[in-house]
Amino acid sequence: MVGLGIRARLTEVMGVDLFRVLTIEEALAVLRTHIRWTPESEEVGLVKALGRVLDRDVVAPEDVPGFDRSTMDGFAVRAQDTFGATEGLPAYLEITGEVLMGSAPGGRVGLGQTYRIATGGMIPAGADAVVMVEYTEQLDERTIGVTRPVAPGDNTVRRGDDLSRDAVLLDAGHRLRPQDIGLLAATGVSRVSVARQPRVGVITSGDEVIPVDAALAPGQVRDVNSYTNGALVEVNGGIARRYGVVGDDFELLSAAVRRALDENDAVVISGGSSVGKRDFSAEVINSMGEPGVLFHGLAVRPGKPTIGAVVDGKPLIGLPGHPVSAMVVFELIVKPLINPKAFRLTLRARITRSLSSPPGKEDYVRVALSNVDGVLTAEPILGKSGLIVTMVRSDGLARIPLESQGVSAGDEVEVIPF
Amino acid sequence: MVGLGIRARLTEVMGVDLFRVLTIEEALAVLRTHIRWTPESEEVGLVKALGRVLDRDVVAPEDVPGFDRSTMDGFAVRAQDTFGATEGLPAYLEITGEVLMGSAPGGRVGLGQTYRIATGGMIPAGADAVVMVEYTEQLDERTIGVTRPVAPGDNTVRRGDDLSRDAVLLDAGHRLRPQDIGLLAATGVSRVSVARQPRVGVITSGDEVIPVDAALAPGQVRDVNSYTNGALVEVNGGIARRYGVVGDDFELLSAAVRRALDENDAVVISGGSSVGKRDFSAEVINSMGEPGVLFHGLAVRPGKPTIGAVVDGKPLIGLPGHPVSAMVVFELIVKPLINPKAFRLTLRARITRSLSSPPGKEDYVRVALSNVDGVLTAEPILGKSGLIVTMVRSDGLARIPLESQGVSAGDEVEVIPF
Repeated sequence: MVGLGIRARLTEVMGVDLFRVLTIEEALAVLRTHIRWTPESEEVGLVKALGRVLDRDVVAPEDVPGFDRSTMDGFAVRAQDTFGATEGLPAYLEITGEVLMGSAPGGRVGLGQTYRIATGGMIPAGADAVVMVEYTEQLDERTIGVTRPVAPGDNTVRRGDDLSRDAVLLDAGHRLRPQDIGLLAATGVSRVSVARQPRVGVITSGDEVIPVDAALAPGQVRDVNSYTNGALVEVNGGIARRYGVVGDDFELLSAAVRRALDENDAVVISGGSSVGKRDFSAEVINSMGEPGVLFHGLAVRPGKPTIGAVVDGKPLIGLPGHPVSAMVVFELIVKPLINPKAFRLTLRARITRSLSSPPGKEDYVRVALSNVDGVLTAEPILGKSGLIVTMVRSDGLARIPLESQGVSAGDEVEVIPF
Repeated sequence: MVGLGIRARLTEVMGVDLFRVLTIEEALAVLRTHIRWTPESEEVGLVKALGRVLDRDVVAPEDVPGFDRSTMDGFAVRAQDTFGATEGLPAYLEITGEVLMGSAPGGRVGLGQTYRIATGGMIPAGADAVVMVEYTEQLDERTIGVTRPVAPGDNTVRRGDDLSRDAVLLDAGHRLRPQDIGLLAATGVSRVSVARQPRVGVITSGDEVIPVDAALAPGQVRDVNSYTNGALVEVNGGIARRYGVVGDDFELLSAAVRRALDENDAVVISGGSSVGKRDFSAEVINSMGEPGVLFHGLAVRPGKPTIGAVVDGKPLIGLPGHPVSAMVVFELIVKPLINPKAFRLTLRARITRSLSSPPGKEDYVRVALSNVDGVLTAEPILGKSGLIVTMVRSDGLARIPLESQGVSAGDEVEVIPF
């Protein structure tokens, strides 16, 4: 077994016994020690940038706003001209100009003068504040009375107030949301350098598994994991390449995994990872190259029979065959590898029923979330065989920690929404 | 003004004064009264179905599982043969067969007999339970001792236990997630009928607005809203068609809106919806056809200067020009129209500072979320001009209700994550 050597060495170096089942944190740490994957950059325009991951920091090429602007409809003034103004004794100003949207006003606001200005208009030279139209009275075409004083800077934003040139707008590793794309547009960044999307090969193994559109004979089940794993890759910003169902045959499965490794940045195989005698996955994975299998077994439920391997710097994860277990492990292990800076929102919710949990295992319980009298409430969704229908009825996974022996109805639990 | 007639009639019929600013609920109700949009169906394979919206209920064409299955590795038995078995006095059974994965076992488990079976294997005729391998001892090649009794049905799932044929799997209107696609695959549904993605035309108006890659002259700002609105359409499952920036010219803007209405199912125009004298949007929107403008003004902050119209059954929404206001109104008004059954997760979080709010307005405050000692905490993100950078630093919008005058630090608030 190629993997045994490296596992023994890692066991020594990392102080983690890789021959026992690992926690999620341990498993990720061991995998990351061996993953050597630096995806190439590509440049995309903003219209194609949604969901992509920046591969370098983006700095603002210009100040925002690029000029002093009004934040109100009204009149640009020299603040000192309005000092002491009241409704009874307005400050009278002569209208000597108008700020047109989209262009720099000419001239200058002199002593006792004012320019009309709209929200977003550029503050003309000489002026240092804006009086809202509500606090003025129009006396004639050329004259207003200001009924309330303004201080310098009132109702304006100064050049660079929002962002100054060379400020870091967004960090490398950030996945672009609509507002991020808006920020880039605001500062004149029309193209960004992003990481190529990770390509993930998806393989299902098992003699009993048939394609979704084939006729079902007794004893056979349909291929679910190619679809769930492929969709999870896409939801996490990757490109899924599906290699279909491969029977429990060492040569066939080896060939499929070899091809998937050659064509992708990571590979997930589902099925064939429990300890039954027909489970070829571990053997196949181990034959692929160095360092090979790093762990076999996770301290989570569901998801124990997971294999973690790295071959030539690429992660190769053997997911459990059970669709629910496969989805849970994908969320906990594969997602952090292909989408490392994903924002993970963890909620706290009150669980509606007591659940026991073996100590030494993290339990992930499917729950439906609802607001009950203003309290976020998690209702465990249980099902006899735990088929995928329980995932469909759930909104998230409630975590029962490693050291805990269970939770009581009414306890607060952590929930990862999905 | 074409719109005034219908607004007066609606005011009477709906008991809502459409000449004042509306709440979000009122605005959506008034729009929905006039929207006539039934998108065509299209059929897609499961690999292309992620994020699409079902346009009819999907029923299971077959039972899942399709046969009685083992949920454990072990031995298929007649439960009655194990009654009374203990470690001291095992029940001895003869191994007369083996269940191969993916095929129906031949023969029958007779009295005192058993078949080897793996997890997922088909229960052979005659057997009604499975004994886990842990509770057996192998005596010789043909004989085991069972050390613990099982009841009929133990460690098995019956045909149809998860889903029976003709059960409704997913409802019309449901947006497909990875687990939903897995459920469809499990039941042999390889293609689904989905609604054509809504096409939304996106227009930015304003003389001061220039394209993102143009050189910025004094007084000009870049087009942010085409990018944020376009990305928000895509995030919500629609197809954005961008019509770029149109200056404040009645003829030009009318032509652009007309074209966008002809080519799309809905149109959003941003900019030009406050009451400055250069605001042509309302006038243009009103000239487009019946019933035209239904409301002008929402009781929300930010977002007050929003125009809601329907023309020939298609919604035409005038969003505020300010990028943050436009995003907030998109979330509250446009999203429910184009993605009606979106799952909206509302969180409850403790706000870290006191905020005042004018009564009669719903306030949406940008907040950053974090877990502080196990409590979900919302930190308001304030900025002088409220530029889009505040959206970038936020994780959600905290809602201060219509009737409230504000919140105190430590109060619980509702947060819509984004």
